[in-house]
Formats: sequence, structure tokens, C-alpha cells
Amino acid sequence: MDTVTLEDARRVIAAAEAKAAEIGQPMNIAVADAGGNLVSHVRMDGAWLGSIDISINKAFTSRAFDIQTKDLGDNAQPGNQFYGIHASNHGRIMIFAGGLPLSRDGQVVGSIGVSGGSGEQDQSVAEAGAAAL
Amino acid sequence: MDTVTLEDARRVIAAAEAKAAEIGQPMNIAVADAGGNLVSHVRMDGAWLGSIDISINKAFTSRAFDIQTKDLGDNAQPGNQFYGIHASNHGRIMIFAGGLPLSRDGQVVGSIGVSGGSGEQDQSVAEAGAAAL
Amino acid sequence: MDTVTLEDARRVIAAAEAKAAEIGQPMNIAVADAGGNLVSHVRMDGAWLGSIDISINKAFTSRAFDIQTKDLGDNAQPGNQFYGIHASNHGRIMIFAGGLPLSRDGQVVGSIGVSGGSGEQDQSVAEAGAAAL
Amino acid sequence: MDTVTLEDARRVIAAAEAKAAEIGQPMNIAVADAGGNLVSHVRMDGAWLGSIDISINKAFTSRAFDIQTKDLGDNAQPGNQFYGIHASNHGRIMIFAGGLPLSRDGQVVGSIGVSGGSGEQDQSVAEAGAAAL
Repeated sequence: MDTVTLEDARRVIAAAEAKAAEIGQPMNIAVADAGGNLVSHVRMDGAWLGSIDISINKAFTSRAFDIQTKDLGDNAQPGNQFYGIHASNHGRIMIFAGGLPLSRDGQVVGSIGVSGGSGEQDQSVAEAGAAAL
Repeated sequence: MDTVTLEDARRVIAAAEAKAAEIGQPMNIAVADAGGNLVSHVRMDGAWLGSIDISINKAFTSRAFDIQTKDLGDNAQPGNQFYGIHASNHGRIMIFAGGLPLSRDGQVVGSIGVSGGSGEQDQSVAEAGAAAL
Repeated sequence: MDTVTLEDARRVIAAAEAKAAEIGQPMNIAVADAGGNLVSHVRMDGAWLGSIDISINKAFTSRAFDIQTKDLGDNAQPGNQFYGIHASNHGRIMIFAGGLPLSRDGQVVGSIGVSGGSGEQDQSVAEAGAAAL
Repeated sequence: MDTVTLEDARRVIAAAEAKAAEIGQPMNIAVADAGGNLVSHVRMDGAWLGSIDISINKAFTSRAFDIQTKDLGDNAQPGNQFYGIHASNHGRIMIFAGGLPLSRDGQVVGSIGVSGGSGEQDQSVAEAGAAAL
């Protein structure tokens, strides 16, 4: 099972931070490994305190289901097939934009979770991070 | 109290695994006894990490209310009679497809919970398992 | 990162069950992977209900610190260097005998957790399981 | 309220990492701010998974009581004045070595938590980190 290293995580976080700085929105950024366990987290100065937990759990969620959290969110709306999934895994499932699997050679090797702005901002920062793997 | 044995649970799980292999989707499969307590769990290679907890809790939920989780889900949508039930039981109530009671001689003796694919896939694998009791 | 497969887990569990049968004490037996996540669990007929959680968490603990839970326990007694560690990781740290890392080619690839008897019994069953990897 | 910045946290973490590398023991290292909230965390490759939570909570604990966790630990042994404190704060209180307040101009502005080795190793790495503030 291939997995991200701390060096990988730092490269991903640096790219995400650069994007957050570019759009002027301080963010919490977390990277998890192939086992869903945290590798690294940073809170940029001024970023929301409540987003520490959210960023770490968006990363967990993306690896837990090998899916973007925004796509899981579509399936988790009332009436849809995974409605209620946010009650599972002891509060660690986040069902809104900002979490992405990290893949290498077609295999998920970890994940990134971003929280601190609008859903659109979180998503764009997470994508910038993921692109740097 | 008639209840599933470990041997029963293994037969149910084997049938569920065979169905999961047939449809090409690795699954987490759990069987609970008449007391709602876990008898056995397997995570097939490559199945989602986030589905460990969900499969075990789908099994718990089905025995907790002697109902299929997808039917409980219908009643648990916003505006319906059990909306909010997913907040009870310390996060153990799952309200989407994949959990089924296991019955023998007209009596519920345990339950199966399956998680790892779409709602439809989880349901079909759980049904294959239940049929083997 | 090498990790146990479901087939590995079943071989380990079968060996542990055989030992439990030999000593006449029904057990809960759990195997976790290299990420600390559950691969499989079985509760032998008549084994304690409270040991479901303990077996799964002994497996988690052994991988979380790459140590036998009985050795962690020695370090976690009042006055010793890790006293209080049982309050960490949201109640998942077990500090008594029955959890062992599973190693292959000198690398920890998972873990086994056994609960259902005395500390000595749990330990001997876990050792029998680990020897089958 | 003077508080550590992300830049401060990174300098502290870098010094702690250098010490961990020097003693050959991979560590989890966390820095919290004056509010006790996580600023940054790194898990060095090969460091214990169970120490993610512990490092973050050692940092929380040190700021929560403006004390080194090893000194709190002395007071938290059976029979001593704070025995039982590890049951408070929802499992976030760590009472063994590796957590230190970070001070500037005689004021606590944050904290560092280190976990991944013996109590003595955790303490020495945390001290190296704190010295870099």
C-alpha cells in the first residue's frame, strides 16, 4: 500500500497555502495518509478555529470513502442514497466541499482537507494542493 | 432467546462476500446477534475504511428496530415521523440501505449490515447474506 | 507500506480460535491492518459482550504504538512514564494483556487483539494467532 | 493577546524535528496557540499513529494549565492533589512528559506537545522545540 510521506504532505500543503494567499482567505489545511491518519496540519494566521477539526475530518472522509467530500455531500442530501452518513464514524464524516483524495499511479495514497472559507474557496484550495502531489 | 451463532454469521457473511465478488464491489459485512451485539465483521480487501463503522452500525440499527435500514430511512427523512433518529444511540443509527434483520421461524434472531458501494449494491449484498441464514 | 490482507486476518483468527478452544475459553478476536483499521472480528459463542470493543481496541492500540498491550500496560501504571495514556485516543487505548503487533520481514503490518478471559489467557490466544501470520 | 503565529510554530517544529532526527526517534509534534487551539502538527515518517492525538493533546494540556505535562503528571498520581484530572476535558488532558508552555516576555503565548518515544525522549524534543521560539 503506497502512502504519502511527510515530505509529500508538506509539498501539498505549500501549494494549498499559496492558493489561499492568492485568493486572500486564510485556511486550515490537513493531509492524511493511506490509512486515513493525519500526517500534517497547518492553520494559517487568522483562519477559523472551528475549521481545525473540519479540515482534519474532511481529509479523513475523503480517504475513508475514496471520494471528494462535495460529491459525497451530493449523495448525502435528504432523500438521497447516503443521507444520514454524517452521523457515522463518531462525527468524523464531513459532507461539504473541501476534501479530496490524493492519488498516485491510479491509487489513492492519502487525502487533503481544507476549511476556512466558502465551499467554493475550500474546494479550489484543496484542488491546488492535490495538484502538487 | 434464539440467536445467530458464529457459525450462522459465517454462513451469512460467506454468501454476502460471494455476491459482492460477483458484482465486483468490495464490501464491509457485519452480523449482529439477537442482542444487537457484533458477532463477526469482515472487510474485503480494498473496501472503504469509512464503511467499517457503518456496516457494524447498520447491523445494530436493523436489530435495534427490527427493520431494514432503508425502510427506517424512508421514515427518517425531514418531515417524516422518525426524522432525527440518527442523532440517537450515540451515532449508531444508520438510515440508509444495507441493513436487514435476520429471521428464523418468524422471529428476529440477529441482523446483517453491509457497506462499501451504492445503496443498491449494499442492499443486494445484504439480501444475499440474509438469504443464507 | 505492507499490510495484512483479509486472508491473512482469517489465518490469524483461525489459529487464535483453535487455541481458545484448546484452553476452553471463548474469545473475541480482532485483526487490524497497518493503518490501525479493523480487518476482521469474530466473537466465539458464549464470549463476553464487553470484550467486543476491547478486542478491537487492543488491536488498535498494538498498531498505534507498535507494542504489546501488556508491555504498554507496564509503562502505564501509576508512577510510570506513560501513566494516563489510557485517557487518549477517545477511549481506544487498552493497557492490559491481549494485543500484539503482527510483523512480516521485520515490519509491523497489522495487529491482533484478544479479549474474553484472564490476561494470561488473552495473551496466549493472541500469541497463537500472531504465530500464524 | 500575544500568541504564536504559524511562522513561530514552524520554527518550533523544525527545531523539534532536528532534535528527533538527532536522537533517531520519529515523533509527532504539535503547537497550540494562546487559546489552546492547534496551529500546526507534523507526524514524521514512521512515528506512532497513536501519538497523533497525544501530541495535540499534550500541547492543549500545557496551555490549558500553563504547566509542563510532566509536572502536571506528578500532581495527578493516585493520592496527589490533581488525581483524576485526566478524566476531564473530554479526554484531552495528558499527564505524562512531552508538553511544554511556550513563553515570550514572561507570558505564555502557546504550547508544544511531543509524542513518539520514551517520556525522556519526548521531553527532550519538546524542550528543543520550545527553545527555538
